[in-house]
Amino acid sequence: MLLRFTLCLLLCFTLAPLPRASPLKVEIVHQGLVHPWGLAFLPGGDLLVSERPGRLLRISADGQRHPVAGLPEIAAEGQGGLLDLAQDEQGWLYFSYSEPGPGGSSTAVARARLQDDRLVSLQPLFSQRPKVSGGAHFGSRLVLGSDGLLYITLGDRFHYRDQAQRLDNHLGKTVRLNRDGSVPHDNPFIHTRGALPEIWSLGHRNMQGAAWRPVARQFWAHEHGPQGGDEVNLIERGNNYGWPRVSFGEEYGGGKIGEGGSAPGLTGPLKVWVPSIAPSGMLFHSGNHYPQWQDKLFIGALRGQKLVELTLAGDSIIAERALLTERGERIRTIKEGPDGALYLLTDSAAGKLLRVAP
Amino acid sequence: MLLRFTLCLLLCFTLAPLPRASPLKVEIVHQGLVHPWGLAFLPGGDLLVSERPGRLLRISADGQRHPVAGLPEIAAEGQGGLLDLAQDEQGWLYFSYSEPGPGGSSTAVARARLQDDRLVSLQPLFSQRPKVSGGAHFGSRLVLGSDGLLYITLGDRFHYRDQAQRLDNHLGKTVRLNRDGSVPHDNPFIHTRGALPEIWSLGHRNMQGAAWRPVARQFWAHEHGPQGGDEVNLIERGNNYGWPRVSFGEEYGGGKIGEGGSAPGLTGPLKVWVPSIAPSGMLFHSGNHYPQWQDKLFIGALRGQKLVELTLAGDSIIAERALLTERGERIRTIKEGPDGALYLLTDSAAGKLLRVAP
Repeated sequence: MLLRFTLCLLLCFTLAPLPRASPLKVEIVHQGLVHPWGLAFLPGGDLLVSERPGRLLRISADGQRHPVAGLPEIAAEGQGGLLDLAQDEQGWLYFSYSEPGPGGSSTAVARARLQDDRLVSLQPLFSQRPKVSGGAHFGSRLVLGSDGLLYITLGDRFHYRDQAQRLDNHLGKTVRLNRDGSVPHDNPFIHTRGALPEIWSLGHRNMQGAAWRPVARQFWAHEHGPQGGDEVNLIERGNNYGWPRVSFGEEYGGGKIGEGGSAPGLTGPLKVWVPSIAPSGMLFHSGNHYPQWQDKLFIGALRGQKLVELTLAGDSIIAERALLTERGERIRTIKEGPDGALYLLTDSAAGKLLRVAP
Repeated sequence: MLLRFTLCLLLCFTLAPLPRASPLKVEIVHQGLVHPWGLAFLPGGDLLVSERPGRLLRISADGQRHPVAGLPEIAAEGQGGLLDLAQDEQGWLYFSYSEPGPGGSSTAVARARLQDDRLVSLQPLFSQRPKVSGGAHFGSRLVLGSDGLLYITLGDRFHYRDQAQRLDNHLGKTVRLNRDGSVPHDNPFIHTRGALPEIWSLGHRNMQGAAWRPVARQFWAHEHGPQGGDEVNLIERGNNYGWPRVSFGEEYGGGKIGEGGSAPGLTGPLKVWVPSIAPSGMLFHSGNHYPQWQDKLFIGALRGQKLVELTLAGDSIIAERALLTERGERIRTIKEGPDGALYLLTDSAAGKLLRVAP
């Protein structure tokens, strides 16, 4: 009895439960990448990495870099450049980039095949309208859903935020396309007069992370808030996510934006960060090789310099854990490798590709 | 154009948004309290504070302490002692404590009136069954709902956790009573053979925080997980919250508990902490005096040594902020004062009463 009581005191009274360390094994796969942004796994074990200044690299299994030729012209200024990569089962490589043109630049998406370190059979799929000046808020993540469609996140281009509420442009929107770039017949605004038919959702700011959630067949994205107010959203058909009518953040330097955090008719976030962590990259883990990670949501942080692990119950985010905080690296991109490990790109002029496993 | 681009770079590219400091004004109202646990505000500006070893103090506006006489016998061992306090509009003071008796002790609740620093008209309202040995997991928070009822949180008494799934005892339960201690006619298990009629919900571990949510007329509570797995729950009629069949935590020293985090027929938490913060104290702010705090959920942390501010959207918790981390104090209790400020008790042999305002 005394022993049990003493044990109880030791275990649960004097101090609360001790955390058990959950160490992650982190391995540097490659380094010296210049602001790497997109990552794709090729069938034979090679990797493709995009560097924001406008270079596409094949990294072979022995660690050698091979520049890939045949990219279109890219407007690499500020946050713009060669951005996301995605590979489908038919051998198409999808890529997003800031495309120059009359008026400035905008986010564009194309696909091509890779042959002897050259892009061939290039097909332009999408070009954000309008092109505007400025080097900020391009988006742009590419998500290949298990519904066979291509989802693209498009930023508000910073100076043009009010356009995010209008349906006659692609600023601050997600779009949904067939993989050949044509518009699906069941897109939400296809019969709305004056609306661009590619639009899937509106009222976004700058979405540098998006992912398909396999268990629920859902498309999710996160976005940078202004000063505070980074959001995670479940992106559903035709919804308005509120920017800049509402925000949990505030103007740079202070000052209220719009009507506060929420308003009727607008879809609210499932998670908010105040202050901002500056999220980039997003992945729902399949659970392959690591069942304990199944349906875990991983998000990278640039300013926050960490890997965030979120636990879901239904569509609610019920727990958050900060990982890799000790590394102090800006995380740009997260992909799941064929081996079930997480592959991260760090954002720096000397960026790294990390492999992370439990 | 160049200026705008430079501005843009400065604001949103090189670094992410800067957090704006939201300083809180913290004032020490009183100190030298021995493991203070409960707090109540008296009409004239005086305060009542319970000390866990078994002392009730009136603290007058000039800071003088006046011991209050007339408490029942208290079994003050381990986590047990004189615990929570609540005051109603009719001048009744409700208090919870560990009550000695055949078999050990259990959590009991009584009410009384205060007259010349003495408790008078004492009415025993509730006594947890069975009494068991051990000094851990008594609960016990008292919540006076705007529905006119009294809610009490009751721990599983640590060694008896399997009892939390059975309806023939009060271990690991919340109970719901009329304020005179009688059982409301619409309690969920009142017609269930063998069930104790006071039970409102089951499957709990140790709930040291609970609160009424005024805007939604809801009863919420949190509970300590074992090693990891602290939970915030919306406590609804007759629900089973799963302990120890499921938990997001694990056994002390490692080892799975039950069937994992969730299972059909069990109500899951709205928020989980892994590792544990050891929550204690809970308040939904009314918004009086500080509209920016309306419906904010404040939770104290013992091991976590911070004040947690949670933002809700509907019944989802969408944002979390850690406050007062720089103080390094174990927070036991949170109440809203008549002035709208937060009043916190810190858990220590030299505990403090803090006033916190924006």
